[in-house]
Amino acid sequence: MPKKILILKSSPREKGNTATLADRLAAGATLSGAEVESIYLHGLDIRPCDACDLCQDSGGCVIEDDMQSLYPKLVAADGIVLASPIYWFTFSAQLKLCMDRWYAFQASKWKQISGKQFGIILAYGDSDLYSSGAINAIYTFESMARYLKSEIEGIVHGSLSDVGDSEKNPVLMQAAFELGQKLAETS
Amino acid sequence: MPKKILILKSSPREKGNTATLADRLAAGATLSGAEVESIYLHGLDIRPCDACDLCQDSGGCVIEDDMQSLYPKLVAADGIVLASPIYWFTFSAQLKLCMDRWYAFQASKWKQISGKQFGIILAYGDSDLYSSGAINAIYTFESMARYLKSEIEGIVHGSLSDVGDSEKNPVLMQAAFELGQKLAETS
Amino acid sequence: MPKKILILKSSPREKGNTATLADRLAAGATLSGAEVESIYLHGLDIRPCDACDLCQDSGGCVIEDDMQSLYPKLVAADGIVLASPIYWFTFSAQLKLCMDRWYAFQASKWKQISGKQFGIILAYGDSDLYSSGAINAIYTFESMARYLKSEIEGIVHGSLSDVGDSEKNPVLMQAAFELGQKLAETS
Amino acid sequence: MPKKILILKSSPREKGNTATLADRLAAGATLSGAEVESIYLHGLDIRPCDACDLCQDSGGCVIEDDMQSLYPKLVAADGIVLASPIYWFTFSAQLKLCMDRWYAFQASKWKQISGKQFGIILAYGDSDLYSSGAINAIYTFESMARYLKSEIEGIVHGSLSDVGDSEKNPVLMQAAFELGQKLAETS
Repeated sequence: MPKKILILKSSPREKGNTATLADRLAAGATLSGAEVESIYLHGLDIRPCDACDLCQDSGGCVIEDDMQSLYPKLVAADGIVLASPIYWFTFSAQLKLCMDRWYAFQASKWKQISGKQFGIILAYGDSDLYSSGAINAIYTFESMARYLKSEIEGIVHGSLSDVGDSEKNPVLMQAAFELGQKLAETS
Repeated sequence: MPKKILILKSSPREKGNTATLADRLAAGATLSGAEVESIYLHGLDIRPCDACDLCQDSGGCVIEDDMQSLYPKLVAADGIVLASPIYWFTFSAQLKLCMDRWYAFQASKWKQISGKQFGIILAYGDSDLYSSGAINAIYTFESMARYLKSEIEGIVHGSLSDVGDSEKNPVLMQAAFELGQKLAETS
Repeated sequence: MPKKILILKSSPREKGNTATLADRLAAGATLSGAEVESIYLHGLDIRPCDACDLCQDSGGCVIEDDMQSLYPKLVAADGIVLASPIYWFTFSAQLKLCMDRWYAFQASKWKQISGKQFGIILAYGDSDLYSSGAINAIYTFESMARYLKSEIEGIVHGSLSDVGDSEKNPVLMQAAFELGQKLAETS
Repeated sequence: MPKKILILKSSPREKGNTATLADRLAAGATLSGAEVESIYLHGLDIRPCDACDLCQDSGGCVIEDDMQSLYPKLVAADGIVLASPIYWFTFSAQLKLCMDRWYAFQASKWKQISGKQFGIILAYGDSDLYSSGAINAIYTFESMARYLKSEIEGIVHGSLSDVGDSEKNPVLMQAAFELGQKLAETS
């Protein structure tokens, strides 16, 4: 059965560097037999968790917004790709809005969201992981992966300031492609 | 001249643990002569940065939402307090939405937001800084402080699961009070 | 076949807090059927790696000191426990001396030291993981575990300033005991 | 009065990449008027701290080895440069041996070692700060700097596998030179 890969494009730019790398990852995954779906988070209506805690009883979030259609996609995915630019020294608010809502999975003891393979794509304007704060995004995703007993299969990251920089970086494009292949094939 | 302290309450809970600690910090600061204003971020309309980059030319953000009234408060503050629960292994999306919009200060070479004193308040449900992911919030704020040539004057943090836990923790309440005093007095 | 657990006691204090917790871990492991050996690193002659790189050809380190008897124990172990006080914001020099010499395993493509279970015991004088720097030891061990495709099965840590503090902390003692059980049973 | 800069060369290689960058830093500092001394730690007899705690009463360490001549140099320095290769996912054991012995300054409430400017030079074989573990060295030095109320004035780091790689990297060589200038001039 083909692997299902869900890509969360978390930049406001639909055709920015993380989106380009995510598309290259998608190509690698598709050519290796996976079913890939990409979601452009900035285009969705996702409100912040309001800590009502109703999810802990009912097994679901009561906020009626676009997360309701995203929840079943997250559950169905074998692999989830988090593709984000570094904004303010970690991943984007668009992705944080989405992830904070994953709290609703706690009612099922996180079973529906555990044991998945994660792929990470990060682009930053500064020169390295430390000065850009990209390392903070990586550590946050690792905290998550430990908690969810999931694996981070690969992290594709680079200093990419301007739209179009990723296309000029064949090493990074290839790394994204190969991460897609890996996610399609990991058992 | 009295110090101006701006507190960003970043939990959806208006009377939760980080809000309670923030109020205690405010008491310490006020009694030491500071002018304190608290903002409940969840109650505001703050949209995500859309990467239009218009701020880099005009010197201001063009998104017409509640950030427009928050920007001058951030500029005027001597001290800024970030009070957030740990959601999904770092600070809340509500705070991230606000901070991503600070990018608009880049046009002024960050001058308007540099050189300030920061105070941090973090509450988490898990047992320690590592398992909760609170350490990721701390490191992200440190990346910011380095970049802005600002100082983090103190970090008040604790394992506080249920509403009301902070009131039962006199050590933490006192630490928040003293951080308020320190922010009021730091020259 | 019983699991082999090797404990590296890395404090200069033979009966200090990390040694006490390590002994409690050993009790848990032994009672669950494991064979446990504890090594007091401070009592050994372990010289720093001198970067001669001869190990990369010969498959072994040429420095004639007590690492020569420790190498086969590391290879044979199913589980390795790193028990260290926090000195200067990370684990002790005694443990670092030992670990730097693990570079000799690179000649075998790290096979002999990969796929093991690690257990971590850390004691610190300061109040938490961040101010003590214990978090730096944890992150360093995680970098190692990722590289070696090994797992960190548990981290027992606490603020323990004075000799004897660990015995007064039944929660921590029990956590060490249970980590020993876990290491004995992990398949 | 000229600034005094003390460089701790922490690689076993006297002419390796971190030593080369450290020499370039020394050139920058000297040409800006500083007095620079470089110490090759691997050539010294520095034993691990044995936790005797006698330093806490007497105000000095009782271990009779080469730290006795290094202590006054550390006290006298305005700037201290830590130049280390990344070994086992953080800085070298040679440097850790030296730093663990700084505990002796606690008797003076750290006054003799506080308020200094630090410079950092790191070289690693892996591709980036995260996979190499260099980030762990940086975070450990930051924990130290916070504790000692000192500043890290700059971090020069790069992926430099083979002896001679630093000479081929003019950007890194220039960054080291400029960090030397900065340390010579910081007031």
